[in-house]
Amino acid sequence: MVLYYKRIVKESEFGYIKWLQKHLRYGKDVLIGSGDDCAVIKLPDNNLLYATTDTIVEDVDFKKATPEQIGYKSIAISLSDLAAMGGDFTKIYALISASLPKNRAKPSFTHPLFKGMHSICTRFGVQIIGGDLSSIKGPITITSTLFGISKSKPVVRAGVREGDAILVTGSLGGSILGKHLSFTPRLRESALLNRHYKINSMIDISDGLVVDLNHILESSKLGTVLDELSIPISKDAYKLKGNSLRHALTDGEDFELLFTAPLKEAVKIIRDRALKTPVSIIGMITKQKGIYLLSKQGEISNIKPQGFTHF
Amino acid sequence: MVLYYKRIVKESEFGYIKWLQKHLRYGKDVLIGSGDDCAVIKLPDNNLLYATTDTIVEDVDFKKATPEQIGYKSIAISLSDLAAMGGDFTKIYALISASLPKNRAKPSFTHPLFKGMHSICTRFGVQIIGGDLSSIKGPITITSTLFGISKSKPVVRAGVREGDAILVTGSLGGSILGKHLSFTPRLRESALLNRHYKINSMIDISDGLVVDLNHILESSKLGTVLDELSIPISKDAYKLKGNSLRHALTDGEDFELLFTAPLKEAVKIIRDRALKTPVSIIGMITKQKGIYLLSKQGEISNIKPQGFTHF
Repeated sequence: MVLYYKRIVKESEFGYIKWLQKHLRYGKDVLIGSGDDCAVIKLPDNNLLYATTDTIVEDVDFKKATPEQIGYKSIAISLSDLAAMGGDFTKIYALISASLPKNRAKPSFTHPLFKGMHSICTRFGVQIIGGDLSSIKGPITITSTLFGISKSKPVVRAGVREGDAILVTGSLGGSILGKHLSFTPRLRESALLNRHYKINSMIDISDGLVVDLNHILESSKLGTVLDELSIPISKDAYKLKGNSLRHALTDGEDFELLFTAPLKEAVKIIRDRALKTPVSIIGMITKQKGIYLLSKQGEISNIKPQGFTHF
Repeated sequence: MVLYYKRIVKESEFGYIKWLQKHLRYGKDVLIGSGDDCAVIKLPDNNLLYATTDTIVEDVDFKKATPEQIGYKSIAISLSDLAAMGGDFTKIYALISASLPKNRAKPSFTHPLFKGMHSICTRFGVQIIGGDLSSIKGPITITSTLFGISKSKPVVRAGVREGDAILVTGSLGGSILGKHLSFTPRLRESALLNRHYKINSMIDISDGLVVDLNHILESSKLGTVLDELSIPISKDAYKLKGNSLRHALTDGEDFELLFTAPLKEAVKIIRDRALKTPVSIIGMITKQKGIYLLSKQGEISNIKPQGFTHF
């Protein structure tokens, strides 16, 4: 169990994750500690409490963004983490901590900032129950901590099985052109999938398809073959310079659901048109380790996990 | 109900708090929303969930501090907020979000940082269940979000009554000389007080005695008289330049408990030597609004709430 990193941190540079693993100890009440999209706690009455925290920092997570967009994103990324656990939440609460430089600590910034938070909270039934406000001589920094209450069991990364089909919602790549500020957290889709289908593992795509796929595979000894023709490349990925497939495979912050299910279930999900959002089967979980891509031409090549690195 | 500010924010400058009040709506499950030291949620089984979030920022909340001290403080301030609610917690969980500049993202900094967090967590039975790590081109910024589970009812600020005695734990002033980095959150004292005595209102002293006293009085139409001779001035307050009483009255970050109780109860608390920590009765809640000080010479003067302001 490790502290959860929204984005991959090179362990060779940092050594922090493994070092932490040695120190954290959990009681039986902690079903899932650090290392998945959310922590999951068993409450005294057997309800589950799902908790996640995320920070967005100016110049790292947003640059040219309106205050509304910043507010929206600060909540949306944590909602996406809740979605990644497949929880069917009866209640969701938010605590927000904002550090603002003095020139932003005025209504012309804070009001639309709050409006951005408030609009997405209202849409997903989130109650903002508290927060903290600090001054900072530096970039805007906002931490949102969300917790949801649910009776439904979490869909964890480690549940991945050989022979599973790999699925994604929506389309991928090029989120930098705007989607990273305006994406819809797939909370409803996730709850619906977990309620009606057998989903073996799930994550939200924050670091990029290949890196997040690697997160799912980490605790297993399995690999994948992705089918180039099936990968849903977004319109924005085509607009960007460079290979659009590469954008779909490696760009971060699409915040779509990446999940695996037995092939039969996957086919059912597609046939039922269960979700309003498009869903694609993009590959299979294989016994052979590594991530491979089957090209249009029928060639198979190895892909190395690559995505955004903080340090 | 407002977003909770650890330190006072001048509403005239900012207008943010009142503006927020208009927008936040709560269901019946939210016993206490923003505006107290913690939010309190009624869980499906009638246990209560206490939640609080606090951010510390380099150059604002700490300057010359070791990584251990920074880690310690990041958790301790939130534990102090839990203490301020009088909750007798069966479980406490922490989520930690750290934004570090690149030159601090190395084991020589992160390991002792984590050790500081871990040592206080172990001491108070807190489980670190998750976190987030970001890079920042700016000061170290750490947000800790704690939530505790308890069956005991919260002691809220608004419970203050006319004729209550005002009490504080420990001694006050001069925390800048070191206590602000190494204080003990009064969690055990608070739980013991709430279990065995009738406590009407409670807060932790983060902004300074007079400002926090004013927070307690805010929702009432009451005032106070403080007795100069009874105010426990710390050794560090005497070491600082300026009037030591003034330091005790206005310095922030002592993180002692400030609470009110019927006089009879207050006397019992003192007589019983109920806490290992010293407790003093420092004044009374009066019908007349305003905060007054009875000097050694027997003169009464008005004190204006003054303390640390972020903006």
